[in-house]
Amino acid sequence: MAGDVLGRELRLISFGESHGEVVGAVVEGVPAGLPLEESDVQELLDLRRPGQSQYTTSRSETDKVRILSGVFRGRTTGAPIAMIVRNEDVVSSYYEEFLRTPRPGHADYVARLKYGGYNDYRGGGRFSGRMTISMCMGGAIARKLLERIGAEVIAYSLEIGGERASDFTLEEAREYRYRNPVRAPNEESYRRMAEAIESARREGDSVGGVVEAVALNVPPGLGEPLFDTIEGDVAKAMFSIPAVKGVEFGSGFRAARMRGSEHNDPLVIRDGKVAYAKNDHGGVIGGITTGEPVVVRVAFKPTSSIAKPQRTVDLEEMREVEIRVKGRHDPCIVPRAVVVVESMLAFVLADHAIRAGLIPRVLR
Amino acid sequence: MAGDVLGRELRLISFGESHGEVVGAVVEGVPAGLPLEESDVQELLDLRRPGQSQYTTSRSETDKVRILSGVFRGRTTGAPIAMIVRNEDVVSSYYEEFLRTPRPGHADYVARLKYGGYNDYRGGGRFSGRMTISMCMGGAIARKLLERIGAEVIAYSLEIGGERASDFTLEEAREYRYRNPVRAPNEESYRRMAEAIESARREGDSVGGVVEAVALNVPPGLGEPLFDTIEGDVAKAMFSIPAVKGVEFGSGFRAARMRGSEHNDPLVIRDGKVAYAKNDHGGVIGGITTGEPVVVRVAFKPTSSIAKPQRTVDLEEMREVEIRVKGRHDPCIVPRAVVVVESMLAFVLADHAIRAGLIPRVLR
Amino acid sequence: MAGDVLGRELRLISFGESHGEVVGAVVEGVPAGLPLEESDVQELLDLRRPGQSQYTTSRSETDKVRILSGVFRGRTTGAPIAMIVRNEDVVSSYYEEFLRTPRPGHADYVARLKYGGYNDYRGGGRFSGRMTISMCMGGAIARKLLERIGAEVIAYSLEIGGERASDFTLEEAREYRYRNPVRAPNEESYRRMAEAIESARREGDSVGGVVEAVALNVPPGLGEPLFDTIEGDVAKAMFSIPAVKGVEFGSGFRAARMRGSEHNDPLVIRDGKVAYAKNDHGGVIGGITTGEPVVVRVAFKPTSSIAKPQRTVDLEEMREVEIRVKGRHDPCIVPRAVVVVESMLAFVLADHAIRAGLIPRVLR
Amino acid sequence: MAGDVLGRELRLISFGESHGEVVGAVVEGVPAGLPLEESDVQELLDLRRPGQSQYTTSRSETDKVRILSGVFRGRTTGAPIAMIVRNEDVVSSYYEEFLRTPRPGHADYVARLKYGGYNDYRGGGRFSGRMTISMCMGGAIARKLLERIGAEVIAYSLEIGGERASDFTLEEAREYRYRNPVRAPNEESYRRMAEAIESARREGDSVGGVVEAVALNVPPGLGEPLFDTIEGDVAKAMFSIPAVKGVEFGSGFRAARMRGSEHNDPLVIRDGKVAYAKNDHGGVIGGITTGEPVVVRVAFKPTSSIAKPQRTVDLEEMREVEIRVKGRHDPCIVPRAVVVVESMLAFVLADHAIRAGLIPRVLR
Repeated sequence: MAGDVLGRELRLISFGESHGEVVGAVVEGVPAGLPLEESDVQELLDLRRPGQSQYTTSRSETDKVRILSGVFRGRTTGAPIAMIVRNEDVVSSYYEEFLRTPRPGHADYVARLKYGGYNDYRGGGRFSGRMTISMCMGGAIARKLLERIGAEVIAYSLEIGGERASDFTLEEAREYRYRNPVRAPNEESYRRMAEAIESARREGDSVGGVVEAVALNVPPGLGEPLFDTIEGDVAKAMFSIPAVKGVEFGSGFRAARMRGSEHNDPLVIRDGKVAYAKNDHGGVIGGITTGEPVVVRVAFKPTSSIAKPQRTVDLEEMREVEIRVKGRHDPCIVPRAVVVVESMLAFVLADHAIRAGLIPRVLR
Repeated sequence: MAGDVLGRELRLISFGESHGEVVGAVVEGVPAGLPLEESDVQELLDLRRPGQSQYTTSRSETDKVRILSGVFRGRTTGAPIAMIVRNEDVVSSYYEEFLRTPRPGHADYVARLKYGGYNDYRGGGRFSGRMTISMCMGGAIARKLLERIGAEVIAYSLEIGGERASDFTLEEAREYRYRNPVRAPNEESYRRMAEAIESARREGDSVGGVVEAVALNVPPGLGEPLFDTIEGDVAKAMFSIPAVKGVEFGSGFRAARMRGSEHNDPLVIRDGKVAYAKNDHGGVIGGITTGEPVVVRVAFKPTSSIAKPQRTVDLEEMREVEIRVKGRHDPCIVPRAVVVVESMLAFVLADHAIRAGLIPRVLR
Repeated sequence: MAGDVLGRELRLISFGESHGEVVGAVVEGVPAGLPLEESDVQELLDLRRPGQSQYTTSRSETDKVRILSGVFRGRTTGAPIAMIVRNEDVVSSYYEEFLRTPRPGHADYVARLKYGGYNDYRGGGRFSGRMTISMCMGGAIARKLLERIGAEVIAYSLEIGGERASDFTLEEAREYRYRNPVRAPNEESYRRMAEAIESARREGDSVGGVVEAVALNVPPGLGEPLFDTIEGDVAKAMFSIPAVKGVEFGSGFRAARMRGSEHNDPLVIRDGKVAYAKNDHGGVIGGITTGEPVVVRVAFKPTSSIAKPQRTVDLEEMREVEIRVKGRHDPCIVPRAVVVVESMLAFVLADHAIRAGLIPRVLR
Repeated sequence: MAGDVLGRELRLISFGESHGEVVGAVVEGVPAGLPLEESDVQELLDLRRPGQSQYTTSRSETDKVRILSGVFRGRTTGAPIAMIVRNEDVVSSYYEEFLRTPRPGHADYVARLKYGGYNDYRGGGRFSGRMTISMCMGGAIARKLLERIGAEVIAYSLEIGGERASDFTLEEAREYRYRNPVRAPNEESYRRMAEAIESARREGDSVGGVVEAVALNVPPGLGEPLFDTIEGDVAKAMFSIPAVKGVEFGSGFRAARMRGSEHNDPLVIRDGKVAYAKNDHGGVIGGITTGEPVVVRVAFKPTSSIAKPQRTVDLEEMREVEIRVKGRHDPCIVPRAVVVVESMLAFVLADHAIRAGLIPRVLR
């Protein structure tokens, strides 16, 4: 078992359940001397928090983080940093019925099989989107570590409900994404995406989408092939986010339809330095960063919890039945996933930067 | 550094270089008592070997595997299994010039940066497609372990140069894929894919494609969320294969454009057992196998080595120049990658089956 | 960095500091269905708690454990189990002066060097004996897992201040050890050890000792050589306990002075089964358990904090000075270490039992 | 299973069997640019090779190392370094009988149990002393890495058959140890140890002993507590060497009988720098190196293979019998273990130096 640790020299350990007492994380391997306050973590938690707009669930989760260890007088100590958020506004009674009639799209049935019925099923337990709180905790620290080497990660909703953003610059995305509730990179796409979500909600349905994350100023040479490639480690982290169905870098699946002469990225001289003409390679070649922006796209399926009636099985009577999933749910989880994708990309890059010896063990 | 070990209770260690003395692997954690002969491994190596058709490079590589340890009287002993293939038909002189004028699409330049110029650049060194020999070595053993629990992995070229296979059954694919040189799942798609490759070759160009792999009879409950999900561990393994740009499961990126009511997979009763109505989820929900076939698609970029002239930088004179990449290269690496994708999926599933306690430590 | 995770399929993550808000642990990889209550953990914490007798420090630490996750309706869920104890009765002002004049025998100076002065030095921070609370948390769960395979660990003070226990049976030790404050295996040795401690205390000094732990009914075949031997993994765990200077198994250092004819352990038939005539091998041969009791001895140095004046360096003035270490300290930490040694041995054996597939993933 | 990998950022993978085709190792995580030739490894293999004197077995093993990968033009490339030694002069027929009548002191019986009889039992298989060849391979590289930070490891036989070396300086030991067949630190102790071995041999018996290793100029601050302490990681490595029964640091077990006032190591000013007055702490406090020499002692049991008749069990007839272990065996393995202990200490320290960022990834 034992699959709740991510990373190697910077490690994220997740714990907690959706309707248990807390959701939390331990981040270890953090160099000493990094200024860190609860507000640094809170900022990311607030960005993933629901209840902020009509496009997300109306549950009220204050999600106030508390740092329990590893920080002394405002700086990290080199010791593990444990953090928790208490679970509040929890209504567990909804979930009793799903023991018997597992919800399509959710892990209700496989979790029951795997854990012999002992798993905490309330609110989805360990399979809830609330587990991404642990990821944001790791991301908050990783982001501050990356700052030390001048690197930055910017994520946004690239596409929601089939509405794809276009004609935006990264600079626009950086400024605009967290100022609109769907995390679109510009206003025009925000309007289209918001309408797509609203339309699904009206019909008691849900939509999926794609988050794009771009890491800027990543030093060349990160990544440890053959197996610990940047793409591999990033993909592993992304697939731990609930609802992710695909991960691609640079040209991604589009590359499959390109010719070599079109896809290959000529080396050029830019500002007196070696650079790449374009970035179809997505900032990584051979599993190693090239110095160009790392570009990853993450596909999310539509929210599994929908108001529409659905077919499933009554496990006691072993017959097919129709259920309705009550509760307050996001018609689209993509907006809230943006900061999680950002966190996971930052985390993996920070781990690799430490492995590469680029972040010292004591920060001044 | 240290990134050449994959897996946890079944581990694959890769070593060797393209034009060094050998390419090899150590597989450890293999239960004792598994019948294993060199021919079991050779079978997979032969499937990835070039020179088999006009659609792959004309290099002649016999790639005969030699098992050096871990097998005694035809069965595994529980000790690490070391295997090597000697490199032959090596012409390294081609590669001297790429030190100075790195090839677009290849890792020449980043490898030089990362390893300070000490890397063995001949034939691409550690970044060569020949490293997939290590992966097939691991796959050969994994495949035999999966047999013990009745599971099987079937991979094939789903799409090459934009030509996508359709109207085939998995049964057809199982029979046909290794009987045609492009590893298409049926004859009709074989013809289209072969023509796409041939067309690119005539123009001194290359094409990419998509490999699909399906794992059948995978027991439900494999995978260890939060972080060691099946998708995450499979994706990490896939991205270690050179030229991979994207990985998706089940509905994959298509899910981003679906509605929940369309995507959700109703539970049904089939043959008296709980099953899923369709398999958009790709055999994994919440990071755990559901018992339905695990379906993964892997996008490959077009071969970077093309005959057409390309732009790059002369690193000594720091100016942009045009180069031609000589040598014998595959106009499409997808056909040879099929058995590698199959190997990696088998390997990760076997590792998880061991972690789940489903494969005993002594096999009779 | 990142060195706060122990184990492989059962993992213990420690966090917290001596005078921080909490000391805690996450235990992951625990099978689902194990009955677990806070009182199970509390029992071990109470055994390591100070203030219980004149032989230990008078600090009052209630050390009440709180389980934050991973347990639902009295049973483990398969999810990570996070636990904390709040730090109370903390007087940190003692420790300011040791920044300037580091205490001999303590990690004050090397911690300052390593963490650039950012470590939480109060109460020894991460180097405090309070970190063994994390170990007991892991031990409490491991002990219950071992019960499932009928195995049991019994530790006791074998020697304190040169007074070595003798003429006791394991049965006596099991009954008596936690009923006397020095954790001696029988009354006669208790009296001698207690006197040795009292004598040191009167002189403002401290004494060391040896803890012996015996694991009974350990199944044969645990341990994964070449490197993951039982001895190696147990020793690694033991050396993480503060003040440990040596670890030996079975005959241990005495073996160095024996002859082969004397040391070799003849196989015999006992109760119709193969067994070993004696147990100089300490229950492990070739890194693998033999089925005989696993016997480990752990040497503890005398407590570093003593009332007597000591020489050290004033780091600001860079001159040698004399200091007195105030505060309430154990004149011997061995009695409180007994349950910690017991915990660590149980933990490593439980991890290996899981790796060997002997403890199922769902317990009924 | 999967226990054949040691280390974290510098990793040693062992493979091979005593009477199989090869014994080998893969060392990965080695920085690029380190000059390395087969003779660097051969030097250590020659020091562990038998047949060099009357005090070791008369088997003739040439043990010529061959580097298969990871070195290009005399320098490491950053890729994994695979090495093998072919097994020669192998007489396996000796070992058939031990299947039925396992040898006392050897792993014959437990290996059979653990691997269901599929293990390669010839010559002890994976439990043979020949596995230490892998360790020397790792040690040869680690030694060269430590040179880069000015550190050095010196090991020698401290005690054999009860004869303990005394009145030697480390300088003497460095010069003399490999110039005498028992690896004693000075001539006087050599004579006594040699006589002890000879005396045991004459009686068809064997003796054990203690190897001491000292690491000089180790930078302070290595080690990653709570769990990845220097002592813990060194001890784990040492216990993987066959026949080891105990490991201690500095004062070791002797500390258990000391008082705090006697054991504590005052900080002093030496040559204008902070140092420790003596080194009872053995170069490590709190799991972290102090800058003083790291001192470890490793206890070896007497060789299990002795000419004298021994009792064991006939597993087929399930009755106790007497056997004689034929073959050519060392009456004491300590002399040959010296270079292995040296290798393992060097390896762990080099791994930690890389983890601490003290050895760059590219060496010039």
